[in-house]
Amino acid sequence: MKGKLFGIGTGPGDPKLLTLRGKELLETADVIAYPVRKVGEEGTALEIVRGAVDLSGKEIVELLFKMDPDDEVRKKCRAESIDRLCTILDSGKNVAMVTLGDVGVYSTYMYLDRTIRARGYETEVVPGISAFSYGSALASVPLMIGTESLAVVSAAKQNYGEVEKALDDFDNVVVMKAYQSMGVITEMMQKRGIPAGNAVVISNLGMPDQYIGPMEAGKEYGYFTTLIIKKKGI
Amino acid sequence: MKGKLFGIGTGPGDPKLLTLRGKELLETADVIAYPVRKVGEEGTALEIVRGAVDLSGKEIVELLFKMDPDDEVRKKCRAESIDRLCTILDSGKNVAMVTLGDVGVYSTYMYLDRTIRARGYETEVVPGISAFSYGSALASVPLMIGTESLAVVSAAKQNYGEVEKALDDFDNVVVMKAYQSMGVITEMMQKRGIPAGNAVVISNLGMPDQYIGPMEAGKEYGYFTTLIIKKKGI
Repeated sequence: MKGKLFGIGTGPGDPKLLTLRGKELLETADVIAYPVRKVGEEGTALEIVRGAVDLSGKEIVELLFKMDPDDEVRKKCRAESIDRLCTILDSGKNVAMVTLGDVGVYSTYMYLDRTIRARGYETEVVPGISAFSYGSALASVPLMIGTESLAVVSAAKQNYGEVEKALDDFDNVVVMKAYQSMGVITEMMQKRGIPAGNAVVISNLGMPDQYIGPMEAGKEYGYFTTLIIKKKGI
Repeated sequence: MKGKLFGIGTGPGDPKLLTLRGKELLETADVIAYPVRKVGEEGTALEIVRGAVDLSGKEIVELLFKMDPDDEVRKKCRAESIDRLCTILDSGKNVAMVTLGDVGVYSTYMYLDRTIRARGYETEVVPGISAFSYGSALASVPLMIGTESLAVVSAAKQNYGEVEKALDDFDNVVVMKAYQSMGVITEMMQKRGIPAGNAVVISNLGMPDQYIGPMEAGKEYGYFTTLIIKKKGI
Protein backbone atom coordinates (compact mmCIF):
# COMPACT_ATOMS: atom_id res chain seq x y z
CA MET A 1 0.00 0.00 0.00
CA LYS A 2 1.51 3.29 -1.13
CA GLY A 3 1.53 6.35 1.12
CA LYS A 4 -0.30 9.58 0.29
CA LEU A 5 1.29 12.97 -0.30
CA PHE A 6 -0.17 16.13 1.24
CA GLY A 7 0.88 19.64 0.20
CA ILE A 8 0.09 21.95 3.08
CA GLY A 9 0.07 25.74 3.00
CA THR A 10 1.36 26.96 6.37
CA GLY A 11 0.15 30.53 5.99
CA PRO A 12 2.46 33.55 5.97
CA GLY A 13 4.14 33.36 9.38
CA ASP A 14 1.87 33.24 12.42
CA PRO A 15 1.49 29.52 13.32
CA LYS A 16 -2.12 30.22 14.35
CA LEU A 17 -2.97 30.92 10.73
CA LEU A 18 -2.50 27.25 9.90
CA THR A 19 -5.84 25.60 9.09
CA LEU A 20 -7.39 22.89 11.27
CA ARG A 21 -7.00 20.48 8.34
CA GLY A 22 -3.33 21.36 7.96
CA LYS A 23 -2.66 20.80 11.67
CA GLU A 24 -4.50 17.47 11.69
CA LEU A 25 -2.58 16.15 8.68
CA LEU A 26 0.78 17.28 10.08
CA GLU A 27 -0.02 15.50 13.33
CA THR A 28 -0.89 12.24 11.62
CA ALA A 29 1.70 12.20 8.81
CA ASP A 30 4.64 9.83 9.16
CA VAL A 31 7.06 12.14 7.40
CA ILE A 32 7.27 15.93 7.22
CA ALA A 33 9.04 17.28 4.15
CA TYR A 34 10.09 20.92 3.86
CA PRO A 35 11.73 23.01 1.18
CA VAL A 36 15.04 24.83 1.62
CA ARG A 37 17.12 26.98 -0.71
CA LYS A 38 20.41 25.87 0.86
CA VAL A 39 21.36 22.56 2.48
CA GLY A 40 21.03 22.68 6.28
CA GLU A 41 18.86 25.79 6.31
CA GLU A 42 15.86 25.84 8.70
CA GLY A 43 13.00 26.32 6.26
CA THR A 44 10.54 29.12 7.03
CA ALA A 45 7.52 26.87 6.46
CA LEU A 46 8.89 24.26 8.87
CA GLU A 47 9.57 26.91 11.51
CA ILE A 48 5.96 28.12 11.28
CA VAL A 49 4.60 24.60 11.66
CA ARG A 50 6.77 23.92 14.73
CA GLY A 51 4.84 26.75 16.42
CA ALA A 52 1.54 24.87 16.02
CA VAL A 53 2.31 21.14 15.87
CA ASP A 54 4.49 18.85 17.98
CA LEU A 55 6.77 17.22 15.41
CA SER A 56 8.83 15.15 17.85
CA GLY A 57 9.25 11.55 16.76
CA LYS A 58 8.49 12.33 13.15
CA GLU A 59 10.88 11.79 10.27
CA ILE A 60 11.80 15.21 8.89
CA VAL A 61 13.05 15.40 5.31
CA GLU A 62 14.76 18.42 3.80
CA LEU A 63 14.18 19.01 0.09
CA LEU A 64 16.61 21.28 -1.74
CA PHE A 65 15.26 23.77 -4.27
CA LYS A 66 18.12 26.03 -5.34
CA MET A 67 17.06 29.53 -6.39
CA ASP A 68 19.34 29.24 -9.39
CA PRO A 69 18.81 31.42 -12.49
CA ASP A 70 19.55 28.30 -14.57
CA ASP A 71 16.31 26.45 -15.37
CA GLU A 72 18.13 23.13 -15.62
CA VAL A 73 19.48 23.40 -12.07
CA ARG A 74 15.99 24.10 -10.75
CA LYS A 75 14.50 21.22 -12.76
CA LYS A 76 17.17 18.86 -11.44
CA CYS A 77 16.32 19.86 -7.85
CA ARG A 78 12.66 19.16 -8.53
CA ALA A 79 13.39 15.80 -10.14
CA GLU A 80 15.52 14.74 -7.16
CA SER A 81 12.84 15.83 -4.70
CA ILE A 82 10.17 13.96 -6.65
CA ASP A 83 12.22 10.75 -6.62
CA ARG A 84 12.93 11.11 -2.94
CA LEU A 85 9.24 11.65 -2.10
CA CYS A 86 8.18 8.69 -4.28
CA THR A 87 10.65 6.42 -2.52
CA ILE A 88 9.13 7.37 0.85
CA LEU A 89 5.57 6.93 -0.48
CA ASP A 90 6.55 3.49 -1.84
CA SER A 91 7.46 2.44 1.69
CA GLY A 92 3.82 3.08 2.66
CA LYS A 93 4.45 6.23 4.64
CA ASN A 94 2.27 9.35 4.34
CA VAL A 95 4.20 12.55 3.67
CA ALA A 96 3.11 16.09 4.51
CA MET A 97 5.11 18.66 2.61
CA VAL A 98 4.85 22.15 4.04
CA THR A 99 4.95 25.27 1.92
CA LEU A 100 4.94 28.95 2.95
CA GLY A 101 1.70 30.90 2.50
CA ASP A 102 -0.84 29.43 0.09
CA VAL A 103 0.04 26.39 -2.02
CA GLY A 104 -1.49 27.98 -5.14
CA VAL A 105 0.58 31.16 -4.88
CA TYR A 106 4.16 30.90 -6.19
CA SER A 107 4.80 27.54 -4.57
CA THR A 108 7.15 24.85 -5.80
CA TYR A 109 4.91 22.15 -4.37
CA MET A 110 2.51 22.29 -7.32
CA TYR A 111 5.27 21.18 -9.73
CA LEU A 112 5.87 18.11 -7.61
CA ASP A 113 2.19 17.34 -7.07
CA ARG A 114 1.45 17.02 -10.75
CA THR A 115 4.32 14.68 -11.54
CA ILE A 116 3.76 12.54 -8.47
CA ARG A 117 0.05 12.16 -9.25
CA ALA A 118 0.91 11.27 -12.85
CA ARG A 119 3.07 8.47 -11.44
CA GLY A 120 -0.02 7.02 -9.78
CA TYR A 121 0.26 8.28 -6.21
CA GLU A 122 -2.60 9.89 -4.35
CA THR A 123 -2.10 13.55 -3.39
CA GLU A 124 -4.07 16.29 -1.62
CA VAL A 125 -3.50 20.02 -1.55
CA VAL A 126 -4.51 21.94 1.58
CA PRO A 127 -4.73 25.69 0.94
CA GLY A 128 -3.12 28.25 3.24
CA ILE A 129 -3.45 31.95 3.97
CA SER A 130 -1.45 33.96 1.42
CA ALA A 131 0.79 36.89 2.37
CA PHE A 132 -1.53 39.35 0.63
CA SER A 133 -4.59 38.00 2.41
CA TYR A 134 -2.80 38.38 5.77
CA GLY A 135 -1.57 41.84 4.82
CA SER A 136 -5.11 42.89 3.98
CA ALA A 137 -6.29 41.60 7.37
CA LEU A 138 -3.50 43.25 9.39
CA ALA A 139 -4.00 46.57 7.65
CA SER A 140 -7.83 46.20 7.86
CA VAL A 141 -7.92 47.08 4.17
CA PRO A 142 -10.09 44.96 1.85
CA LEU A 143 -8.48 43.45 -1.24
CA MET A 144 -11.74 44.13 -3.07
CA ILE A 145 -15.33 45.01 -2.30
CA GLY A 146 -18.57 44.92 -4.27
CA THR A 147 -17.71 43.78 -7.79
CA GLU A 148 -14.20 45.26 -7.86
CA SER A 149 -11.28 43.49 -9.47
CA LEU A 150 -7.88 42.56 -8.07
CA ALA A 151 -4.55 42.13 -9.83
CA VAL A 152 -1.68 40.34 -8.13
CA VAL A 153 1.68 40.94 -9.79
CA SER A 154 5.25 40.21 -8.81
CA ALA A 155 7.98 42.82 -9.15
CA ALA A 156 10.65 40.17 -8.51
CA LYS A 157 12.13 40.35 -12.00
CA GLN A 158 11.40 44.04 -12.50
CA ASN A 159 8.63 43.05 -14.93
CA TYR A 160 7.12 46.48 -14.61
CA GLY A 161 4.97 46.22 -17.75
CA GLU A 162 2.55 44.06 -15.81
CA VAL A 163 2.54 46.41 -12.84
CA GLU A 164 1.67 49.27 -15.21
CA LYS A 165 -1.15 47.34 -16.88
CA ALA A 166 -2.48 46.38 -13.48
CA LEU A 167 -2.43 50.02 -12.34
CA ASP A 168 -4.14 51.09 -15.57
CA ASP A 169 -6.95 48.57 -15.57
CA PHE A 170 -7.61 47.30 -12.05
CA ASP A 171 -9.24 48.82 -8.98
CA ASN A 172 -6.92 47.01 -6.61
CA VAL A 173 -3.34 45.95 -7.20
CA VAL A 174 -1.15 43.76 -5.01
CA VAL A 175 2.55 43.99 -5.83
CA MET A 176 4.54 41.15 -4.34
CA LYS A 177 8.34 41.27 -3.85
CA ALA A 178 8.15 45.04 -4.16
CA TYR A 179 11.15 45.78 -1.89
CA GLN A 180 13.59 46.83 -4.63
CA SER A 181 10.95 48.57 -6.68
CA MET A 182 9.30 51.03 -4.33
CA GLY A 183 10.75 54.08 -6.12
CA VAL A 184 9.65 52.88 -9.55
CA ILE A 185 6.17 52.01 -8.32
CA THR A 186 5.80 55.37 -6.58
CA GLU A 187 6.58 57.08 -9.89
CA MET A 188 4.07 54.88 -11.74
CA MET A 189 1.40 55.85 -9.22
CA GLN A 190 2.24 59.58 -9.50
CA LYS A 191 2.07 59.41 -13.32
CA ARG A 192 -1.46 58.00 -13.00
CA GLY A 193 -2.59 60.45 -10.35
CA ILE A 194 -2.87 57.75 -7.68
CA PRO A 195 -2.02 59.36 -4.31
CA ALA A 196 0.74 57.66 -2.27
CA GLY A 197 -1.83 57.45 0.54
CA ASN A 198 -3.77 54.88 -1.51
CA ALA A 199 -1.08 52.29 -0.85
CA VAL A 200 -0.35 50.15 2.19
CA VAL A 201 3.08 48.58 2.67
CA ILE A 202 3.24 45.20 4.39
CA SER A 203 6.82 44.26 5.08
CA ASN A 204 8.66 41.41 6.84
CA LEU A 205 5.64 40.13 8.77
CA GLY A 206 6.53 38.53 12.08
CA MET A 207 10.14 39.72 11.89
CA PRO A 208 11.70 42.33 14.20
CA ASP A 209 11.47 44.98 11.45
CA GLN A 210 7.81 44.23 10.58
CA TYR A 211 6.14 47.28 9.04
CA ILE A 212 2.50 47.85 8.11
CA GLY A 213 1.72 51.38 7.08
CA PRO A 214 1.89 54.03 4.41
CA MET A 215 4.65 54.31 1.79
CA GLU A 216 7.43 56.54 3.02
CA ALA A 217 9.73 58.22 0.52
CA GLY A 218 13.32 57.02 0.84
CA LYS A 219 12.50 54.30 3.41
CA GLU A 220 14.15 50.91 2.84
CA TYR A 221 11.90 47.86 3.13
CA GLY A 222 12.70 44.22 3.82
CA TYR A 223 12.83 41.35 1.33
CA PHE A 224 9.26 40.22 2.05
CA THR A 225 7.48 43.40 1.06
CA THR A 226 3.98 43.42 -0.40
CA LEU A 227 2.16 46.52 -1.54
CA ILE A 228 -1.64 46.88 -1.67
CA ILE A 229 -2.63 49.77 -3.93
CA LYS A 230 -6.28 50.83 -3.97
CA LYS A 231 -7.11 53.22 -6.79
CA LYS A 232 -10.42 54.26 -5.24
CA GLY A 233 -8.70 55.03 -1.94
CA ILE A 234 -8.29 53.18 1.33
CA MET B 1 -14.13 48.27 29.69
CA LYS B 2 -15.30 47.94 26.07
CA GLY B 3 -15.34 44.61 24.25
CA LYS B 4 -13.27 43.86 21.17
CA LEU B 5 -14.59 43.03 17.71
CA PHE B 6 -13.09 40.20 15.65
CA GLY B 7 -13.83 39.70 11.95
CA ILE B 8 -13.17 36.06 11.16
CA GLY B 9 -12.92 34.50 7.70
CA THR B 10 -14.45 31.02 7.92
CA GLY B 11 -13.00 29.75 4.65
CA PRO B 12 -15.12 28.61 1.70
CA GLY B 13 -17.12 25.72 3.17
CA ASP B 14 -15.14 22.89 4.77
CA PRO B 15 -15.08 23.66 8.53
CA LYS B 16 -11.54 22.23 8.67
CA LEU B 17 -10.32 25.14 6.59
CA LEU B 18 -10.93 27.48 9.51
CA THR B 19 -7.63 28.73 10.97
CA LEU B 20 -6.44 27.84 14.47
CA ARG B 21 -6.71 31.53 15.37
CA GLY B 22 -10.26 31.71 14.08
CA LYS B 23 -11.30 28.65 16.09
CA GLU B 24 -9.68 29.95 19.28
CA LEU B 25 -11.39 33.33 19.00
CA LEU B 26 -14.78 31.79 18.26
CA GLU B 27 -14.39 29.57 21.33
CA THR B 28 -13.57 32.48 23.62
CA ALA B 29 -15.89 35.17 22.21
CA ASP B 30 -18.98 36.05 24.24
CA VAL B 31 -21.07 36.79 21.18
CA ILE B 32 -21.06 35.33 17.67
CA ALA B 33 -22.43 37.63 14.97
CA TYR B 34 -23.25 36.39 11.49
CA PRO B 35 -24.53 38.01 8.32
CA VAL B 36 -27.75 37.02 6.57
CA ARG B 37 -29.49 38.31 3.47
CA LYS B 38 -32.95 37.57 4.84
CA VAL B 39 -34.26 37.59 8.43
CA GLY B 40 -34.25 34.10 9.94
CA GLU B 41 -31.92 32.59 7.35
CA GLU B 42 -29.14 30.25 8.61
CA GLY B 43 -26.04 32.08 7.38
CA THR B 44 -23.52 30.04 5.41
CA ALA B 45 -20.59 31.34 7.47
CA LEU B 46 -22.33 30.36 10.72
CA GLU B 47 -23.09 26.88 9.39
CA ILE B 48 -19.41 26.38 8.53
CA VAL B 49 -18.30 27.44 11.98
CA ARG B 50 -20.77 25.11 13.69
CA GLY B 51 -18.85 22.25 12.06
CA ALA B 52 -15.65 23.23 13.89
CA VAL B 53 -16.62 25.02 17.10
CA ASP B 54 -19.12 24.22 19.86
CA LEU B 55 -21.25 27.37 20.02
CA SER B 56 -23.64 26.18 22.71
CA GLY B 57 -24.18 28.73 25.47
CA LYS B 58 -23.03 31.61 23.31
CA GLU B 59 -25.15 34.57 22.37
CA ILE B 60 -25.75 34.40 18.60
CA VAL B 61 -26.65 37.62 16.81
CA GLU B 62 -28.04 37.79 13.29
CA LEU B 63 -27.08 40.85 11.24
CA LEU B 64 -29.22 41.66 8.22
CA PHE B 65 -27.50 42.79 5.02
CA LYS B 66 -30.10 42.96 2.27
CA MET B 67 -28.73 42.35 -1.22
CA ASP B 68 -30.76 45.31 -2.47
CA PRO B 69 -29.81 47.13 -5.68
CA ASP B 70 -30.53 50.40 -3.83
CA ASP B 71 -27.33 51.71 -2.22
CA GLU B 72 -29.32 53.46 0.51
CA VAL B 73 -30.98 50.24 1.64
CA ARG B 74 -27.58 48.54 1.90
CA LYS B 75 -26.10 51.52 3.77
CA LYS B 76 -29.01 51.47 6.22
CA CYS B 77 -28.41 47.76 6.91
CA ARG B 78 -24.75 48.47 7.60
CA ALA B 79 -25.54 51.41 9.88
CA GLU B 80 -27.99 49.31 11.89
CA SER B 81 -25.48 46.45 12.20
CA ILE B 82 -22.77 48.85 13.31
CA ASP B 83 -25.00 50.33 16.01
CA ARG B 84 -26.02 46.89 17.18
CA LEU B 85 -22.40 45.70 17.41
CA CYS B 86 -21.32 48.86 19.25
CA THR B 87 -24.08 48.39 21.82
CA ILE B 88 -22.82 44.86 22.51
CA LEU B 89 -19.20 46.04 22.68
CA ASP B 90 -20.24 48.80 25.11
CA SER B 91 -21.54 46.13 27.47
CA GLY B 92 -17.97 44.76 27.65
CA LYS B 93 -18.60 41.64 25.57
CA ASN B 94 -16.22 40.46 22.85
CA VAL B 95 -17.88 39.81 19.50
CA ALA B 96 -16.64 37.46 16.76
CA MET B 97 -18.31 38.19 13.45
CA VAL B 98 -17.98 35.38 10.93
CA THR B 99 -17.70 35.96 7.22
CA LEU B 100 -17.58 33.45 4.35
CA GLY B 101 -14.20 32.83 2.70
CA ASP B 102 -11.53 35.48 3.23
CA VAL B 103 -12.39 38.74 4.99
CA GLY B 104 -10.49 40.78 2.39
CA VAL B 105 -12.39 39.31 -0.57
CA TYR B 106 -15.84 40.82 -1.22
CA SER B 107 -16.83 40.83 2.44
CA THR B 108 -19.20 43.23 4.13
CA TYR B 109 -17.26 42.96 7.38
CA MET B 110 -14.60 45.43 6.22
CA TYR B 111 -17.18 48.25 5.94
CA LEU B 112 -18.15 47.68 9.56
CA ASP B 113 -14.58 47.31 10.82
CA ARG B 114 -13.54 50.74 9.61
CA THR B 115 -16.46 52.61 11.14
CA ILE B 116 -16.32 50.73 14.42
CA ARG B 117 -12.58 51.38 14.75
CA ALA B 118 -13.15 55.05 13.96
CA ARG B 119 -15.58 55.12 16.89
CA GLY B 120 -12.76 54.06 19.20
CA TYR B 121 -13.29 50.33 19.53
CA GLU B 122 -10.51 47.77 19.13
CA THR B 123 -10.90 45.37 16.19
CA GLU B 124 -8.94 42.49 14.66
CA VAL B 125 -9.30 40.85 11.27
CA VAL B 126 -8.48 37.15 10.96
CA PRO B 127 -7.97 36.09 7.33
CA GLY B 128 -9.62 33.02 5.84
CA ILE B 129 -9.15 30.76 2.84
CA SER B 130 -10.79 32.31 -0.24
CA ALA B 131 -12.93 30.33 -2.68
CA PHE B 132 -10.31 30.71 -5.41
CA SER B 133 -7.51 29.49 -3.17
CA TYR B 134 -9.59 26.43 -2.25
CA GLY B 135 -10.51 25.85 -5.89
CA SER B 136 -6.84 25.95 -6.86
CA ALA B 137 -6.08 23.39 -4.15
CA LEU B 138 -8.94 21.02 -5.04
CA ALA B 139 -8.08 21.14 -8.73
CA SER B 140 -4.30 20.88 -7.97
CA VAL B 141 -3.82 23.82 -10.31
CA PRO B 142 -1.58 26.69 -9.18
CA LEU B 143 -2.98 30.22 -9.27
CA MET B 144 0.45 31.40 -10.34
CA ILE B 145 4.01 30.12 -10.49
CA GLY B 146 7.40 31.75 -10.94
CA THR B 147 6.81 35.45 -11.47
CA GLU B 148 3.43 35.09 -13.16
CA SER B 149 0.56 37.46 -12.51
CA LEU B 150 -3.01 36.79 -11.41
CA ALA B 151 -6.18 38.74 -12.07
CA VAL B 152 -9.29 38.15 -10.00
CA VAL B 153 -12.44 39.59 -11.56
CA SER B 154 -16.12 39.23 -10.81
CA ALA B 155 -18.65 38.58 -13.55
CA ALA B 156 -21.51 39.29 -11.13
CA LYS B 157 -22.67 42.44 -12.90
CA GLN B 158 -21.69 41.28 -16.37
CA ASN B 159 -18.77 43.74 -16.26
CA TYR B 160 -17.09 41.88 -19.09
CA GLY B 161 -14.67 44.69 -19.98
CA GLU B 162 -12.57 43.72 -16.99
CA VAL B 163 -12.70 40.05 -17.86
CA GLU B 164 -11.45 40.89 -21.36
CA LYS B 165 -8.60 43.06 -20.05
CA ALA B 166 -7.65 40.33 -17.63
CA LEU B 167 -7.59 37.74 -20.44
CA ASP B 168 -5.54 40.09 -22.62
CA ASP B 169 -2.88 41.01 -20.09
CA PHE B 170 -2.65 38.35 -17.39
CA ASP B 171 -1.22 34.83 -17.31
CA ASN B 172 -3.85 33.61 -14.89
CA VAL B 173 -7.40 34.80 -14.51
CA VAL B 174 -9.90 33.90 -11.81
CA VAL B 175 -13.48 34.78 -12.71
CA MET B 176 -15.77 34.76 -9.70
CA LYS B 177 -19.58 34.48 -9.93
CA ALA B 178 -19.17 33.13 -13.45
CA TYR B 179 -22.30 30.97 -13.44
CA GLN B 180 -24.43 33.11 -15.77
CA SER B 181 -21.50 34.05 -17.97
CA MET B 182 -19.94 30.77 -19.04
CA GLY B 183 -21.03 31.16 -22.67
CA VAL B 184 -19.70 34.71 -22.95
CA ILE B 185 -16.40 33.77 -21.32
CA THR B 186 -15.99 30.74 -23.59
CA GLU B 187 -16.37 33.05 -26.60
CA MET B 188 -13.82 35.50 -25.17
CA MET B 189 -11.35 32.66 -24.74
CA GLN B 190 -11.94 31.37 -28.28
CA LYS B 191 -11.43 34.87 -29.71
CA ARG B 192 -8.04 34.98 -27.99
CA GLY B 193 -7.00 31.48 -28.98
CA ILE B 194 -7.13 30.21 -25.39
CA PRO B 195 -8.21 26.53 -25.50
CA ALA B 196 -11.22 25.58 -23.36
CA GLY B 197 -8.93 22.99 -21.73
CA ASN B 198 -6.98 25.84 -20.11
CA ALA B 199 -9.86 26.51 -17.76
CA VAL B 200 -11.01 24.72 -14.61
CA VAL B 201 -14.53 25.17 -13.30
CA ILE B 202 -15.07 25.07 -9.54
CA SER B 203 -18.74 25.07 -8.73
CA ASN B 204 -20.90 24.83 -5.59
CA LEU B 205 -18.14 23.45 -3.34
CA GLY B 206 -19.42 21.20 -0.57
CA MET B 207 -22.92 21.08 -2.06
CA PRO B 208 -24.55 17.96 -3.57
CA ASP B 209 -23.91 19.29 -7.09
CA GLN B 210 -20.23 20.17 -6.47
CA TYR B 211 -18.26 20.16 -9.72
CA ILE B 212 -14.52 20.53 -10.29
CA GLY B 213 -13.43 19.92 -13.83
CA PRO B 214 -13.20 21.19 -17.37
CA MET B 215 -15.68 23.59 -18.97
CA GLU B 216 -18.43 21.70 -20.72
CA ALA B 217 -20.39 23.36 -23.52
CA GLY B 218 -24.06 23.80 -22.62
CA LYS B 219 -23.65 22.60 -19.01
CA GLU B 220 -25.43 24.67 -16.35
CA TYR B 221 -23.40 25.58 -13.28
CA GLY B 222 -24.47 26.58 -9.77
CA TYR B 223 -24.52 30.06 -8.25
CA PHE B 224 -21.10 29.67 -6.59
CA THR B 225 -19.06 29.10 -9.72
CA THR B 226 -15.46 30.20 -10.03
CA LEU B 227 -13.35 29.79 -13.14
CA ILE B 228 -9.55 29.53 -13.17
CA ILE B 229 -8.19 30.27 -16.65
CA LYS B 230 -4.48 29.64 -17.27
CA LYS B 231 -3.26 31.10 -20.54
CA LYS B 232 -0.06 29.07 -20.51
CA GLY B 233 -2.02 25.86 -19.97
CA ILE B 234 -2.85 23.75 -16.96
